[in-house]
Amino acid sequence: MTVFDRLKAATPSSWRAYTDHEFVRQMGDGSLSQDAFRHYLVQDYLFLIHFARAYALAVYKGRNLADMRAAAAGISAILDVEMNLHLKLCGEWGLAPEEIEAAPEARATMAYTRFVLDTGLRGDLLDLHVALAPCIIGYAEIGAALAEVPGALEEANPYSVWIREYAGTEYQEIAEAARANLDRLAADSLTEARFPKLSVIFDQATRLEADFWQMGLERAL
Amino acid sequence: MTVFDRLKAATPSSWRAYTDHEFVRQMGDGSLSQDAFRHYLVQDYLFLIHFARAYALAVYKGRNLADMRAAAAGISAILDVEMNLHLKLCGEWGLAPEEIEAAPEARATMAYTRFVLDTGLRGDLLDLHVALAPCIIGYAEIGAALAEVPGALEEANPYSVWIREYAGTEYQEIAEAARANLDRLAADSLTEARFPKLSVIFDQATRLEADFWQMGLERAL
Amino acid sequence: MTVFDRLKAATPSSWRAYTDHEFVRQMGDGSLSQDAFRHYLVQDYLFLIHFARAYALAVYKGRNLADMRAAAAGISAILDVEMNLHLKLCGEWGLAPEEIEAAPEARATMAYTRFVLDTGLRGDLLDLHVALAPCIIGYAEIGAALAEVPGALEEANPYSVWIREYAGTEYQEIAEAARANLDRLAADSLTEARFPKLSVIFDQATRLEADFWQMGLERAL
Amino acid sequence: MTVFDRLKAATPSSWRAYTDHEFVRQMGDGSLSQDAFRHYLVQDYLFLIHFARAYALAVYKGRNLADMRAAAAGISAILDVEMNLHLKLCGEWGLAPEEIEAAPEARATMAYTRFVLDTGLRGDLLDLHVALAPCIIGYAEIGAALAEVPGALEEANPYSVWIREYAGTEYQEIAEAARANLDRLAADSLTEARFPKLSVIFDQATRLEADFWQMGLERAL
Repeated sequence: MTVFDRLKAATPSSWRAYTDHEFVRQMGDGSLSQDAFRHYLVQDYLFLIHFARAYALAVYKGRNLADMRAAAAGISAILDVEMNLHLKLCGEWGLAPEEIEAAPEARATMAYTRFVLDTGLRGDLLDLHVALAPCIIGYAEIGAALAEVPGALEEANPYSVWIREYAGTEYQEIAEAARANLDRLAADSLTEARFPKLSVIFDQATRLEADFWQMGLERAL
Repeated sequence: MTVFDRLKAATPSSWRAYTDHEFVRQMGDGSLSQDAFRHYLVQDYLFLIHFARAYALAVYKGRNLADMRAAAAGISAILDVEMNLHLKLCGEWGLAPEEIEAAPEARATMAYTRFVLDTGLRGDLLDLHVALAPCIIGYAEIGAALAEVPGALEEANPYSVWIREYAGTEYQEIAEAARANLDRLAADSLTEARFPKLSVIFDQATRLEADFWQMGLERAL
Repeated sequence: MTVFDRLKAATPSSWRAYTDHEFVRQMGDGSLSQDAFRHYLVQDYLFLIHFARAYALAVYKGRNLADMRAAAAGISAILDVEMNLHLKLCGEWGLAPEEIEAAPEARATMAYTRFVLDTGLRGDLLDLHVALAPCIIGYAEIGAALAEVPGALEEANPYSVWIREYAGTEYQEIAEAARANLDRLAADSLTEARFPKLSVIFDQATRLEADFWQMGLERAL
Repeated sequence: MTVFDRLKAATPSSWRAYTDHEFVRQMGDGSLSQDAFRHYLVQDYLFLIHFARAYALAVYKGRNLADMRAAAAGISAILDVEMNLHLKLCGEWGLAPEEIEAAPEARATMAYTRFVLDTGLRGDLLDLHVALAPCIIGYAEIGAALAEVPGALEEANPYSVWIREYAGTEYQEIAEAARANLDRLAADSLTEARFPKLSVIFDQATRLEADFWQMGLERAL
């Protein structure tokens, strides 16, 4: 059993509340309000900025060049590729770059991102990656599950582009690498006595990810 | 004009939403649900743990012994005095220590505390203290304002103990010292070009403090 | 075998070079140049400032109140007690407080202290305490060993005060608590795969401590 | 006058001791012991690892996307380009990659790198870049000065490759960008009251860079 599977198994209700969130279900059947999705898109852009900062901490905390290079590639992927793709997707939804960059951070965005960053500096590299896992690996599970929903990938569903991205091979491989990375880090510093503490971090991060969906649904700031 | 007054003046609606929050008003007239107050008390205890961690960062970041000693006194005040007083107050409200320590952190607790900690490591000592100011100085302003409400300090008001604590001379002096500290730090590294950035930090922290009241009101986790 | 004993056993030559350093031996037989000792005293004062910062990181990184309180007590002990005792001892050696506070940090002082601080933020609480151990526990071993040297504790030896302090029961108990703390932290996150990495940290810290003695001997900046 | 020029002017003897160091002069006239250079090369490789970590902190601490992208490009330049070039250069000097990666960090390497990293987390982005400046900008000044030494760039000088690299347009532009970056950061948070504190950081970093040359000269660990 991978560390990730153990963490999920230890916090089943939080995991379900996150991955089966109303926002997710409504993307699957196409019923999600487009304004809610736009609100989510803008906050997800602001989220990526702090995500890049979290990967920067992973470089800072890396114990060998392989760790550091993997994390550095993550920063570049976010800052140089994903954020531009995100702006492009936003553009297709009628959102101008200036509008996005000037948007205030919602509470839910601040909450999850700062929790991850503090967890990373307070603990070690494994703590940091456990806090990131509900996002990186969770999105892959959500994408894959939604791709199974009848009609979800059809063009009539305005969210099929999003689903296809996270269900796609490229993203699934990123998630697979993240699972393997957790196992590799755990081999070094995961004892049975420590597991419950990691599980608390994972649970808190998962709850904060569910709040992020809820923020989109409510168009909350 | 002190730096604190400038910050407040720059973010008037957030400041009002925080200091005039329904939770605050209901403490003043005694109408607040006692369960809401109990919920707040438990989360405030968990909040203090991270507040002590923020003061620890202020020791780490201090540039001279006076700074470091002031911050170290802050840590001791929290860990050795305030937390025990808090448990005592909780006890008077029928909350057992075990219950409090086992409580999960609410989202609003995580959000504000981790925002402060990340702000402190991302920036300098002034950034850290600006993020702490809505709490430390804000509670003094709220306490003083509530003490003016007719009947607020009478024994019939179950919240008169709380109001008296924050309206009292001892706490008002802590807040006054915090105001002076901001001015002292600003003399070193506050330029006009930087002020808008500090103001964003202050505004975000203030909004997260208002969320903390709201969390109490809704007994939210 | 305690974790500390394992670490020492894994790096025997560094440990011997530190604990049997010429500076140490000359304190034992009283032959150490008084100027070298004065130079050491001044740098040791500057060292304590960063040592307090390292304990502040231990508060920041603490996972429970007991950890945090122990580390906070460490900060207070340094800032409020040890530094004043140190100034008093310096005074007995003819060094004025202004002279000490205005002294530039020697390279060896910067090297060890910043290594400890970076190790603490890069890794977890165990990494931090392993980096501190050669100092805290090493001084107790050095003090105890010197106390056995014939004549070392006699008044004729100008270094008998120093030796008595570190050989004394109070300091020996601090070191004993530090040993127990390492074992407690290790129970949580020390695997066999991790041990060699901790051992590198311990070895580097030990070498930097030996440099600190050498700096005193050479009166180097 | 740029901030960098002010910092240099405030610490003239440290700057001279660094830029006119015996190691530097001997590279210019080709008299440097090749073993000393090899020793330096190995340590410079280990140095780059921590340099990448410092750039990672600059991403973490960046206040806008432009800052973050510039720092992220710095990480990639080090991890993906410079380190490989460095291994290639080492190869030309008969040093095998395994030998380099297994080498222990010298004290001087630990001292400067950890000082930079701690300075960056203790203070703000300006503090971090001031601590990096003696390296990034200093190497450009040293390279340019050596290129003026008669015979320094001729093939007979075994160090002409090194000199040409740092005297070259590409590296000079990197240094120019670093100078401009300091001015830009200073516009935000440099007051006259703060300048002496920055100057202490710059002086300490410069002295630690001079120690790095000395370490090479003495082949010290």
